[in-house]
Amino acid sequence: MDSAIDAHLVCPRKLSRRVADDYQPPFPLWVARASQDLTQVVMAYFGVQYQGEEKKPAAMAALRKIVELFKAENGALHYDLTHHVDNQGYDNLIAVGYWRDPGAHCRWLRSQAVSGWWDSDERLADGIGYFREIVSPRAEQFETLYTHTDASKYPGVGAIMDGASGDIQEHAYWGSMRDRIPLSQTDWLQPSGTLDLISGDPQAGGRVKIRGHDNVALIRSGQNWSAADEDERTLYLGEMEPPLRQGMDFLRDNGPAVGCYSNRYVQNIDLDGNLLDETYCIGYWRSLALLERWAESHPSHLKIFVTFFRVIAGMQKLSLYHEVSVFDAGDQLYEYINCHPQTGMMRDAVMAVAEAA
Amino acid sequence: MDSAIDAHLVCPRKLSRRVADDYQPPFPLWVARASQDLTQVVMAYFGVQYQGEEKKPAAMAALRKIVELFKAENGALHYDLTHHVDNQGYDNLIAVGYWRDPGAHCRWLRSQAVSGWWDSDERLADGIGYFREIVSPRAEQFETLYTHTDASKYPGVGAIMDGASGDIQEHAYWGSMRDRIPLSQTDWLQPSGTLDLISGDPQAGGRVKIRGHDNVALIRSGQNWSAADEDERTLYLGEMEPPLRQGMDFLRDNGPAVGCYSNRYVQNIDLDGNLLDETYCIGYWRSLALLERWAESHPSHLKIFVTFFRVIAGMQKLSLYHEVSVFDAGDQLYEYINCHPQTGMMRDAVMAVAEAA
Repeated sequence: MDSAIDAHLVCPRKLSRRVADDYQPPFPLWVARASQDLTQVVMAYFGVQYQGEEKKPAAMAALRKIVELFKAENGALHYDLTHHVDNQGYDNLIAVGYWRDPGAHCRWLRSQAVSGWWDSDERLADGIGYFREIVSPRAEQFETLYTHTDASKYPGVGAIMDGASGDIQEHAYWGSMRDRIPLSQTDWLQPSGTLDLISGDPQAGGRVKIRGHDNVALIRSGQNWSAADEDERTLYLGEMEPPLRQGMDFLRDNGPAVGCYSNRYVQNIDLDGNLLDETYCIGYWRSLALLERWAESHPSHLKIFVTFFRVIAGMQKLSLYHEVSVFDAGDQLYEYINCHPQTGMMRDAVMAVAEAA
Repeated sequence: MDSAIDAHLVCPRKLSRRVADDYQPPFPLWVARASQDLTQVVMAYFGVQYQGEEKKPAAMAALRKIVELFKAENGALHYDLTHHVDNQGYDNLIAVGYWRDPGAHCRWLRSQAVSGWWDSDERLADGIGYFREIVSPRAEQFETLYTHTDASKYPGVGAIMDGASGDIQEHAYWGSMRDRIPLSQTDWLQPSGTLDLISGDPQAGGRVKIRGHDNVALIRSGQNWSAADEDERTLYLGEMEPPLRQGMDFLRDNGPAVGCYSNRYVQNIDLDGNLLDETYCIGYWRSLALLERWAESHPSHLKIFVTFFRVIAGMQKLSLYHEVSVFDAGDQLYEYINCHPQTGMMRDAVMAVAEAA
């Protein structure tokens, strides 16, 4: 059995795993592997926000523009597209791109094509909102988990990695997520500071920038039933999806009480906006510890968990995965243009100056 | 906030806790404290097993005899009495006594009064069964947990300790049970070997002795609603007790699948056999790790856990507690006289010789 932590990321431990060396998980799961040249990745969530069907063509055009930019020089190696309606009633489209080389991403971001488009005053006058949430975990700051071993089908960050592990030991116990993150060998992954509003005014619209703090945690947790036969579709849509939606709605609406800065439950779409049989959750948390506490004790998540354990053995074509990362403060960029003030990190950001006073 | 590990039991860690130093539990709980002179305790479960109402008077007389012995010189400092029906349809009465001084317990056990009674051939001819399961955790091998802070009312091992802690940090997360056991600072509490049948034949009845292995874990987990008002009684009996019973029945009947050697869900009684408003579970496990796995992932326990979290804030008079211990192989004594072969540790014990072959 493999360790979830790849050999080249193992280091002398200061902190112990939660389980002893002879721990045996009750069923197999896999993680994505990458060669040593992968030292840091970039996950760039570009969003388009609109209200009203009449804005949809402009929003879809903006989404396609982002995809066009992803395909430019130094662009994303992989991307996917989603739609969701938030709790303010706005439609949101997101294109998330993944880079394996932060240098390439930086050159891309500063390119005339990208910065010229994003920074243009025209964005303020498009009649739709934009956001970009760009985070860059180092290799030791993220982990993945998949119910299937065919790495050619891994979504998200797995798509820019190099393959699948053997079945891994660190799963099926609370704390295994932390134990899969290489940095947890030596570091508690504690949050420092606050989410600071560094420019702009969320209430006024326009451009807003927010600065993250150390060890903000991001979970992307997904479900793909596109290959499932009728029985598995029924299992997923009838039994797993309702408690999942309930749990995600809880986090979307009650984040401040549990330490979740933002939670979006999104459905994949194609470039024409057609819904695909694939969804995921994008959740930003103040810390990995707070994510752990919610996951292991909140009834809404325990219901998801119990359902998963009950059906895992019967899953053939339904595939599930997640990726969880923590970031240094400086490896996060949160920017909003004409989005409503509950969008993303804006809801929980505090005035940097007020905090200092 | 206190650590669950008392100051004199703290030692340099080889293994880390599961939570960081700034962890804050969402509600207060307490543990029992004892002065340094408490170095090892004894928990002695003496059982009487019978089938049929006509045997009840003899069984009750035997139970009273055990209580009489508990009160003899060097006897138990504290005891309680329970009744339960096992899954073979037998009634079982248990008197559990607690000693603070293993030397005193040893002198008591070897006294003519006790050994003369237990070892007598008359016990084989009483028409009822007997068992004794006597375990002796050192101070660093057990932990306690209470929903209330009045130590004068602590049941079980808490009754022979000296008081209550302040509210403690290590609770309300999976892994906190382990983190409360002082020995977990340096030791994984791993099981070694098997549960060995060392004399007698469970199928044949008569006297049977079983030898434990290192780090067998015992949980006593109790509920007392005797002081509860009508609302709390309804809450407990209507909402908490049914899932609790379901979980305990699962463990009683499916122990081998999850690593539980024996599970009894017992109700307290008085010396006349009248039922009291108090119950507890006595569960022996192959290891603390297996108890952890069941508790944190099995639907039947998660239902108990979620219900507890939901009602804890409204509990005034309903009191809950548990005590969890691990033992060295040599600090366990399991003996049965004319009990059915599914009783206690007999079900899962293996022939010591066969194992060696």
